Order: sequence, then C-alpha cells, then structure tokens
Amino acid sequence: MFPPHPTELLHVLLESEIVTGDFAIDATAGNGHDTVFLARAVGATGRVVAIDIQQQALASTAVRLESEGLRERVMLHCGCHSDLAEIAGSDRPRAIVFNLGYLPGGDHDLITQTENTLKALSAASDILMPRGVLAVVCYPGHIGGDEEAAAVEVFITSLKAQRTARYSMILRDKTTPFLLLSKKSG
Amino acid sequence: MFPPHPTELLHVLLESEIVTGDFAIDATAGNGHDTVFLARAVGATGRVVAIDIQQQALASTAVRLESEGLRERVMLHCGCHSDLAEIAGSDRPRAIVFNLGYLPGGDHDLITQTENTLKALSAASDILMPRGVLAVVCYPGHIGGDEEAAAVEVFITSLKAQRTARYSMILRDKTTPFLLLSKKSG
Repeated sequence: MFPPHPTELLHVLLESEIVTGDFAIDATAGNGHDTVFLARAVGATGRVVAIDIQQQALASTAVRLESEGLRERVMLHCGCHSDLAEIAGSDRPRAIVFNLGYLPGGDHDLITQTENTLKALSAASDILMPRGVLAVVCYPGHIGGDEEAAAVEVFITSLKAQRTARYSMILRDKTTPFLLLSKKSG
Repeated sequence: MFPPHPTELLHVLLESEIVTGDFAIDATAGNGHDTVFLARAVGATGRVVAIDIQQQALASTAVRLESEGLRERVMLHCGCHSDLAEIAGSDRPRAIVFNLGYLPGGDHDLITQTENTLKALSAASDILMPRGVLAVVCYPGHIGGDEEAAAVEVFITSLKAQRTARYSMILRDKTTPFLLLSKKSG
C-alpha cells in the first residue's frame, strides 16, 4: 500500500534498526501483528516480550506466532503495560512498540487509558538501551483516543531524544492513526 | 539515520513504486540528489526529466549524474517548474518529486515562489499517470517558506487522491522539513 499505513511504515523503518540477537518489547500485543514482526526481526537468538491486558489478545498472538514458527522467541505476559519495567526485567530492549486504542475485533470499551499509557511510555523510555527506539501508533477518533493521542504526542516530543519523527495518513475526517518514532540519545 | 530525514524516507518509499522503464520528473533538481535516485530507479530503459531555474543547479546535477553513470537517462531542463506540463510533453510520469526552498550552497534569496509552486503542483497532479505519485518536501523556517509550506499542504490535502500521507521530523524549533506523499486515484 502506498503511502503505507503507519503500522506498515513502522515495520519498514524498524527493520534496519533491530539486529539478530536483540531483545524487543511489544507493549500492546493486540492481535500479534507487531509481535510477529519483532519476533522475526530479532532472529533465532533474539527474544521478545509481548504484553496485553486481555487474555483474548494473547491467545490470538500465540496462534499467530505458532503458525509462523516464532512462538519460542516470545514470552507472552498478561498485565498492564504500565508495569513494563517490572515485566521486562534487567535486559535493555533495542525497541519498544505501542499500538494504542482497542483490540481489533475485541471489546471497544476496553481501550488503553491515558494515565497508564504515559506511565508505560515513561518506563519504556527509561529501560530502552542507548539509541534504542520507542515507537507508538496512536488512534485519535474513538472516545478517549483524541485525548490519549494528544498526551502521547506531548510526551514523546518532550523526551531528550536523538531524533523524533511523526508520520500520518491525511484523511478528510482527521481521525487517521499516526506514528511517533523516537530514537533515544546514545 | 533513524528516523530518516524526509528526503531519505521519500527514496525508501518511492523505490517500490517506480518500476524499470518508467518516466519520472524531478521538478526541482537542486544539487541532483533526487535526480540521481530517480535515474537509478527507472533503470536503463527508463527516463527522467530534471527541471531547475538555476543553471548552477543543473550543472551540479549533471556532474553528479556523470559520476554515477546515469547521465544518459536524464534530460536536464533550465526553466520554471510551473511550466512542468509543457516541459514533460505527452508522456505520463509515474512519479513527480519536488524539493522546495533554496539551493543548498546557492543563493538563499532565490527561493521557490508559492504561486509558481502551486501552479507546478497542479500541473503535476494533472499529468501524472493513474496511481502515480506526487511527492513534495517542504521547508518551513526560511522567509517565505512557512507560507509556501502551508499552501502546499492545503493544496495536496485538497487533491482527490487515493491516499495521502505526511511525515516530519519533530524538533523543538518547529522549522523542520516535512514530506507530503500523494498517490493519484486509479
């Protein structure tokens, strides 16, 4: 698809940052789309932690990973992404990916909460390795989504990052998702 | 560089749209950075028209093309990009690229003019082949650049495109360049 959806662009750009043997975190596993990408990117010697608050999401992610032969590289964790630092342990990840909003095909009332998201982003920024990548796909346009997207953008922009970028589709209704990418200082 | 500069991202994404044998236009040759990319992308059987109002720019572009062995694929045209349609002739280009602002290392008073730029963009949108790509890198932050960048964004957003996207670096001074990508309807 051209221009790519923000999640597609995320994969295209992260591909060249993650190297074999890396540790990466999918902070919002959802249906496992990003988890599968990360599991492939870190290679057979790398590992991924995928977090979701919904068992249903982790079950979908597990099925997807199995079918791709990637299940062994991923630890699935049911919990809130604001506990990211505790869940990750002492290893420093190369990349942490967030895909906010509700689970596609799931309960639309179960959305990421701004306060938890900011706590999770702050933890993510702390535990990333130097020059690690924090990537967030935001979904304004659902109830609570506008507020969360705006707060996330303010937060990411406030980080003392090496470089930060923003990518969005332009649609007339302005409820299009956007991607924020931030590379931690070295 | 991660995240990439808008001009880098443009190349990464256009790469998969342009196919061997295509016709492409660099509407603002400048120092030939995009011209070289396009000349490589269209392959030995493709062709590129590169336009610039400054002979100095075309001379730099020619040197760059020679050193890459790509000179034969490119017709250099000294003129205003607002005459794009006449310069292009009857062939329908797959991609038209604009890099606005002044010539790096050149006369900073010689900047692209908003009225001419809008005329050029309108012509570009008309002559592109169906599903062709219009790509514009805008440089707010110099005199006239803010106004031009804003006008270009309004114009691109108003096109009945298949898909449109915007990519920018986020910097505290907010004068960072941004990329607009628009795929024409099929």
